[in-house]
Amino acid sequence: MNTFGEKFAFTSFGESHGRAIGGVLDGVPAGLHIDLDLIQRELDCRAGRIGNKARGERREAGVSPRAVREADEVEWLSGVIDGVTLGTPIAFIIRNSDARPEDYEWLRHTYRIGHADRVYQEKYGIRDHRGGGRASARETAARVVAGSIAKQILAEKNIHIEAKLVQVGEETNAERFDAYIAAIQQDGDSIGGIVECRITGMPVGVGEPIFDKLQAHLAFAMMSINACKGFEYGSGFEGVNKKGSEMYLSEDTRLISGGIAGGISDGTPIVFRCVFKPTASNRKTLEEVFQDSKVSEFQGFKVGRHDACVAVRAVPVVEAMAAMVLADWHDF
Amino acid sequence: MNTFGEKFAFTSFGESHGRAIGGVLDGVPAGLHIDLDLIQRELDCRAGRIGNKARGERREAGVSPRAVREADEVEWLSGVIDGVTLGTPIAFIIRNSDARPEDYEWLRHTYRIGHADRVYQEKYGIRDHRGGGRASARETAARVVAGSIAKQILAEKNIHIEAKLVQVGEETNAERFDAYIAAIQQDGDSIGGIVECRITGMPVGVGEPIFDKLQAHLAFAMMSINACKGFEYGSGFEGVNKKGSEMYLSEDTRLISGGIAGGISDGTPIVFRCVFKPTASNRKTLEEVFQDSKVSEFQGFKVGRHDACVAVRAVPVVEAMAAMVLADWHDF
Amino acid sequence: MNTFGEKFAFTSFGESHGRAIGGVLDGVPAGLHIDLDLIQRELDCRAGRIGNKARGERREAGVSPRAVREADEVEWLSGVIDGVTLGTPIAFIIRNSDARPEDYEWLRHTYRIGHADRVYQEKYGIRDHRGGGRASARETAARVVAGSIAKQILAEKNIHIEAKLVQVGEETNAERFDAYIAAIQQDGDSIGGIVECRITGMPVGVGEPIFDKLQAHLAFAMMSINACKGFEYGSGFEGVNKKGSEMYLSEDTRLISGGIAGGISDGTPIVFRCVFKPTASNRKTLEEVFQDSKVSEFQGFKVGRHDACVAVRAVPVVEAMAAMVLADWHDF
Amino acid sequence: MNTFGEKFAFTSFGESHGRAIGGVLDGVPAGLHIDLDLIQRELDCRAGRIGNKARGERREAGVSPRAVREADEVEWLSGVIDGVTLGTPIAFIIRNSDARPEDYEWLRHTYRIGHADRVYQEKYGIRDHRGGGRASARETAARVVAGSIAKQILAEKNIHIEAKLVQVGEETNAERFDAYIAAIQQDGDSIGGIVECRITGMPVGVGEPIFDKLQAHLAFAMMSINACKGFEYGSGFEGVNKKGSEMYLSEDTRLISGGIAGGISDGTPIVFRCVFKPTASNRKTLEEVFQDSKVSEFQGFKVGRHDACVAVRAVPVVEAMAAMVLADWHDF
Repeated sequence: MNTFGEKFAFTSFGESHGRAIGGVLDGVPAGLHIDLDLIQRELDCRAGRIGNKARGERREAGVSPRAVREADEVEWLSGVIDGVTLGTPIAFIIRNSDARPEDYEWLRHTYRIGHADRVYQEKYGIRDHRGGGRASARETAARVVAGSIAKQILAEKNIHIEAKLVQVGEETNAERFDAYIAAIQQDGDSIGGIVECRITGMPVGVGEPIFDKLQAHLAFAMMSINACKGFEYGSGFEGVNKKGSEMYLSEDTRLISGGIAGGISDGTPIVFRCVFKPTASNRKTLEEVFQDSKVSEFQGFKVGRHDACVAVRAVPVVEAMAAMVLADWHDF
Repeated sequence: MNTFGEKFAFTSFGESHGRAIGGVLDGVPAGLHIDLDLIQRELDCRAGRIGNKARGERREAGVSPRAVREADEVEWLSGVIDGVTLGTPIAFIIRNSDARPEDYEWLRHTYRIGHADRVYQEKYGIRDHRGGGRASARETAARVVAGSIAKQILAEKNIHIEAKLVQVGEETNAERFDAYIAAIQQDGDSIGGIVECRITGMPVGVGEPIFDKLQAHLAFAMMSINACKGFEYGSGFEGVNKKGSEMYLSEDTRLISGGIAGGISDGTPIVFRCVFKPTASNRKTLEEVFQDSKVSEFQGFKVGRHDACVAVRAVPVVEAMAAMVLADWHDF
Repeated sequence: MNTFGEKFAFTSFGESHGRAIGGVLDGVPAGLHIDLDLIQRELDCRAGRIGNKARGERREAGVSPRAVREADEVEWLSGVIDGVTLGTPIAFIIRNSDARPEDYEWLRHTYRIGHADRVYQEKYGIRDHRGGGRASARETAARVVAGSIAKQILAEKNIHIEAKLVQVGEETNAERFDAYIAAIQQDGDSIGGIVECRITGMPVGVGEPIFDKLQAHLAFAMMSINACKGFEYGSGFEGVNKKGSEMYLSEDTRLISGGIAGGISDGTPIVFRCVFKPTASNRKTLEEVFQDSKVSEFQGFKVGRHDACVAVRAVPVVEAMAAMVLADWHDF
Repeated sequence: MNTFGEKFAFTSFGESHGRAIGGVLDGVPAGLHIDLDLIQRELDCRAGRIGNKARGERREAGVSPRAVREADEVEWLSGVIDGVTLGTPIAFIIRNSDARPEDYEWLRHTYRIGHADRVYQEKYGIRDHRGGGRASARETAARVVAGSIAKQILAEKNIHIEAKLVQVGEETNAERFDAYIAAIQQDGDSIGGIVECRITGMPVGVGEPIFDKLQAHLAFAMMSINACKGFEYGSGFEGVNKKGSEMYLSEDTRLISGGIAGGISDGTPIVFRCVFKPTASNRKTLEEVFQDSKVSEFQGFKVGRHDACVAVRAVPVVEAMAAMVLADWHDF
């Protein structure tokens, strides 16, 4: 439910507009020095307060103002003394300092289209309507904290994980992503994106056939991220058009394994991609849906309080989830 | 590792050319009447002995001769008396009657390209070289048996699962699949394919945020199938090109949720797709790779002992895995 | 590791003298009204601030002064709005307000006899020496919070759990427990105890053969409590002396099933017992062990900062763990 | 349910009078040479065909004739080639060659006192009445096979597990157990027993606080064995009478830790004890219960087809379960 992994087990909690979000990370080896500043920078990246992958101290294009304002300061409750892990559960919280529940009052009796509002109400009979509650992408901040610790563990084994945006709408030229997204946001619209992740330094042998295949765990992890609608690795969906004679005699790594054979890492870089849908919280959709309602009701969104391309901020989340998959592997 | 699911837990065992493959299915409710003949037909479908989805009593195009010859007769060892379940584990075996290990003798010291031979050797230090051993697609026969029981349980709740081939290479016209695949096989080559699965009759509320989302479990299940390189649901990868205003105001179900919102079934049909790569066991690849070897060494493959399009036989496996995902849900 | 249960999953965290202890409770149904005051009273009972089972507003005999002083105030972080559950994870913390790490400075380089100090150091290579860190019984406060919620869920199904002290040393007369324990404490010593737990209102059928038997889960839960050295149910260890003809023709419930047959609840009251060893943190032991050391080093203990009979405060913990075992059962 | 362990995972199946019992053992390292003869001897010991711990080639006292007759021959289906493990699941079956279902026909509409017959019927609505079906102790044969493999793995790490009967009724002199049990059986009665298990060669550090304590897993494992009514380790229930000053200054290992501190192995021998109740399937109980029935109905039992002291045959099962607990530890 809200726990990910077995040996490196991350439990996440918190509603987007409650007192706090946070997590408990169990199974972290003792004696590890954790770089707390690095974790903070990852959080800032997710929040769009600094450019993706720290390309500068500017705000990322198309990111909601709240995300930028909110400090996301981590309070460490247990499991760490002076930056060194004890081997006991690491608990942390991030207070929701910029919670503005009044912005969401109009949602008390409204189900937003393209959101989980309705199914939460039907499944649980109750929901925290404020900004999506538990279904909000805000919970991914806790994933980034846990994932950052996982990445630090992996880095000591020379395993490195790097995700990046490779497509926004029809645009595949990274140079033009910012301008493209800015235009979409200006227009009150939203757009999809594809994030590619590359894992280098993997030893041979990670993955447990026949069910706990490495690609199955990576897919599970990615599909648990908000707005993710697809996962592929290696030749992926494009591979449908390839003949076997073409594919296996090629030198192109991507066309061949994607770093995994028979569910087991084969020692070459692992490459996978995830697609993120355009968010439904855009002004155009809302204006159309609520054309008979009073405009003021969803004023919050009109002022731009939404992301034009959620794939941008998904980048560190993809890395975090991939890192947790690998850190969980008991052979490590 | 070799167990799938928690409450409806399927444990699979067996090498492709050992004494038997089989499985143990735990968590099946007591008192269920199981249609054993239906299970046999599903197995025949997987084996290509009857046309996919029973379109007739002919052999499926592009399916290996062994598959067609081998009867795949299920022996039920426990958990069932007179076709009625006891609530105890259902164990079954399928003897490997047509095992021809001598065909694979040349593989004892050879790693097939595009197969798991090498990583198995490196991970385990030992492997059953006969036809891929545990990595062979033969193990999916056990999945089909277990999945068929899951489908029968779901059918009693009016939940129906139907998968079909929707693309082979560049071909999307189902009428022409057989001819297309036959030509590929004639040429000694192989080709990729996409299987689409549609689940109808789902109640609202299946899926547990934030990690145990329904799509995450479906993706995990599909990515555990041999040769599957990608999973998508709803708008999937095509959604990257859509604007939010376009997507959410559309009437096209596929463009919207794919039957799942916030990780929870929303009551509409669930639609997902998986892509299968072309198999590496084709004559063209092998001739190229082994151009310096004696032709007789891989004679087995030259006579056509391989599938030209593994996606064909993946269809019942996709259904089986989807059924097991749903049957495992504890709320059921 | 630090998570108990699967469907009703409790994750515990916190060192006894760190910033806070706490927990995350996942799988609690939505819409449940939780009695927060009741939880506080359970905590007070565990802390010895009120008599066991609320027999009066006096402090329990033989309970350490810190326990009585410390307020154990719960801060609810998520999963609850206005005392009603959301179906999302319930996170809570209890700050360590009375942490007096200076009392434990002498423990930095000393392993206490009968405690986990040494094995923690050897296993993790690092430990929080302040009062046992994670191995301290203080973590059971978080269990009591979670268990109290479980008990409230069970009470709605008319299932009631009541534990009580039935033996202290050789004393089996409950009237005399207080005087007996007070004398032991006065003498600077400690003593063992037996807690009996009775569960009424159980439906027939809870428990999953052959491994997930109900008694196996209860034993697992109890043996995870600090200082617990044994578990028995029904006829227990005394049953070794009984002949079958004697036992099965008796009318005495305890002699027969203890409420469980074949691993499944049989509809009669479940009765089990746990034994708790005398704590090693008593003055007499310490004086003997450290006879060559400076008396001042373990001054903290000389002033009575320990429990003479830990079984007293284990009573609500036994109830809490039993409640979590039952609440976890997916058939509920 | 019917799977024990996570990394060294044993799945058990089979009714006592169905076609076969058996199991699947997943997570066994590859390349291990398994001594199949040793496994057969362990099975013979469990069946009472040879004396407990092979004290001679005679039949154990008080063991049912069927157990002695039945060969319990293991058929290995997968995971092993020429006695060497492949790292894939090891599946095995033992056919029920001596099934005499007609002996149990009278049980079709009768619930035996002290057995699980009634709760199985109520829980599942159906049951295999023949000899207890799944609830029969016959399933422990599969545990012994799996446990024997676990013991072989542990032996390579110099960890040895040895269980023995230490009490039968009031008798604690091992020399006299055989005569004592023979007299009980002659009298048509049954008696309880205590098995003590000693694990030597354990490294420091096995066990995961705070829930996955080593003693909690051992207790879980033992309480899952048929007829086991209690578990204790170290000072156990006798410890209730000890004062702390007495216990911790003693030299007696048993009085101190039992080999575990804070849930973690401390490097000294682990010592625990389990109590087994007298079986209810004795002639005296049955005659009393069925005094109004026709004697012929339970003729099968009159001829002595039951164990007078089930603790005798529990000895190798206790060892098997302890071995599986330790083999499952992921740190190994």
